[in-house]
Amino acid sequence: MKKLINNPNFVVEDMIQGIAAAHPEYLRKSTKGNILMRSDAPVKGKVALVSGGGSGHEPAHAGYIGRGMLSAAVLGSVFTSPTPDQIYEAIKEVDGGKGVLLIIKNYTGDVMNFDMAKDMADMDGIKVDSVVVNDDVAVEDSTFTAGRRGIAGTVFVHKISGAKAEQGASLEEVKRVAEKTVANVRSMGMALTPCIVPAAGNPNFTLKDDEMEIGIGIHGEPGIHREKIKRADDIAEELLDKILKDMTFRNGEEAAVMVNGMSGTPLMELYIINKRVNEILTQKGINIHRTFVGEYMTSLEMAGCSITLLKLDRELKELLDEKSNTLGFKVV
Amino acid sequence: MKKLINNPNFVVEDMIQGIAAAHPEYLRKSTKGNILMRSDAPVKGKVALVSGGGSGHEPAHAGYIGRGMLSAAVLGSVFTSPTPDQIYEAIKEVDGGKGVLLIIKNYTGDVMNFDMAKDMADMDGIKVDSVVVNDDVAVEDSTFTAGRRGIAGTVFVHKISGAKAEQGASLEEVKRVAEKTVANVRSMGMALTPCIVPAAGNPNFTLKDDEMEIGIGIHGEPGIHREKIKRADDIAEELLDKILKDMTFRNGEEAAVMVNGMSGTPLMELYIINKRVNEILTQKGINIHRTFVGEYMTSLEMAGCSITLLKLDRELKELLDEKSNTLGFKVV
Repeated sequence: MKKLINNPNFVVEDMIQGIAAAHPEYLRKSTKGNILMRSDAPVKGKVALVSGGGSGHEPAHAGYIGRGMLSAAVLGSVFTSPTPDQIYEAIKEVDGGKGVLLIIKNYTGDVMNFDMAKDMADMDGIKVDSVVVNDDVAVEDSTFTAGRRGIAGTVFVHKISGAKAEQGASLEEVKRVAEKTVANVRSMGMALTPCIVPAAGNPNFTLKDDEMEIGIGIHGEPGIHREKIKRADDIAEELLDKILKDMTFRNGEEAAVMVNGMSGTPLMELYIINKRVNEILTQKGINIHRTFVGEYMTSLEMAGCSITLLKLDRELKELLDEKSNTLGFKVV
Repeated sequence: MKKLINNPNFVVEDMIQGIAAAHPEYLRKSTKGNILMRSDAPVKGKVALVSGGGSGHEPAHAGYIGRGMLSAAVLGSVFTSPTPDQIYEAIKEVDGGKGVLLIIKNYTGDVMNFDMAKDMADMDGIKVDSVVVNDDVAVEDSTFTAGRRGIAGTVFVHKISGAKAEQGASLEEVKRVAEKTVANVRSMGMALTPCIVPAAGNPNFTLKDDEMEIGIGIHGEPGIHREKIKRADDIAEELLDKILKDMTFRNGEEAAVMVNGMSGTPLMELYIINKRVNEILTQKGINIHRTFVGEYMTSLEMAGCSITLLKLDRELKELLDEKSNTLGFKVV
């Protein structure tokens, strides 16, 4: 295990210190646990947005804290849901009196713990609602999930509901656009290499030197199949094909595209994937409104990528284009 | 070699297509070769900034094209300087009548080819000047360099001279702040793993499972020494120690910090490094004005990091804080 860490059992705590020290202009650490939140939280009269989950997916979710996106992120241990009481503390920290929306990636542990936190906050009289993101078209149920998994498409949900909240919308309205985003976003990923959870010390799965896995999850959960590594163009086609089978685009309709790196894959390779993604979508008559290429939802040091398509109507497009200022996602 | 590529000999061309397709709002490809430039180039009455070098360091340098930073980047083959005629074409593409500043990382091939391009442009009557960045304190001369190497500190030179150019300053003034930045920036890096140049197909060096190399260059050039992997805190101390031996800070003076990932190292680990960097600088009475943690100057899929310190006076600080809008570096 070759990692820049101190103690495998304290990677999340060390990381949180490093993030809070780096970016006081965006965020600060709560005294109530492994919670990072907007430096100006709670913002009075604005719906607050809370997300989070297991660590190891950076910049998700702490990197999306700030103006136009999240109010707080709750950081669990690596690949492990944060506890209900941590999430509950985050809700209390950021509630500005207008309610709190929880944005949950669809994993059984996350959904259960965020729901319990919601119930705890309800008893305090805080208005809380939630959306569950399940953008991964690879598999219907998986190791940690009933239904589809939530992956990189979650970042678009942060962005669009965050923009709506920043406009002063009600909790119901913010939830409505979050759900509309969930309904219109699809993703699929692949891996070239596994990753190592620091406290475990060993790879979470193995792949032969000439193998890749298609449809893998962001915790190394099994995907659809393994095969010999193909050309980047063919990989892009295979991922997009499965995504487009699950969405309907009429000619001239618009999309936002995300080519997301799992962390170990250099930007050069992500752009090579995007070359083919762009060609295919253009051929199909889909207008690409914006393209995001980079690391948005990672899996420790795993090499690989995912492709996300978000179908845009006028409302989603306007909200996507609103300014946001966070570490991991700036719209200027 | 596990890479998301098509043909190892065309990774740069495929990448350029992918970048240009993704970001028409920032940049476009020149018809004159492997040159990416501001979508609004040439900008009349503004000094133009041209950088570049071998590919494999993304987002450097194409990711720094845009308002407040570069006018164009010239993309050589992987780890190989662009040719003089490519650089010359880039100069002609972006010259807006007020002159062109070349920002060169100190590698023998780059310096030679950028200088030849400057001579070619001189003969056309284009006003061209250049600065050479040599921020790497690890070694005095190395495999590809006479004198110190230019690494991640180059990004601060792009930012600060870009801000000055955007203000309408003369070529002499833009060059002056670029040189002032070079004089005040120091970096040092380390690696946990090698990387593989696609056309070569084999790692550029080897490290044992428990080894790291301190002072390595961004092309895998030998550093200072190899040793057993240490704790992140100890690595941060070792790199900073060497950097601070080469700079003088009086109590209360300000710095910008960059913790740069070589690409294979996840953001989590970079923030763990930053935790200790922040502690050490704070203990030494150095005021940290801004911290940048992420991938700014990479080395294909190499795992490792570098630390950069930029000592700020009032002028450098104001220019660093000016707005910039590029793929890889946004100041909002």
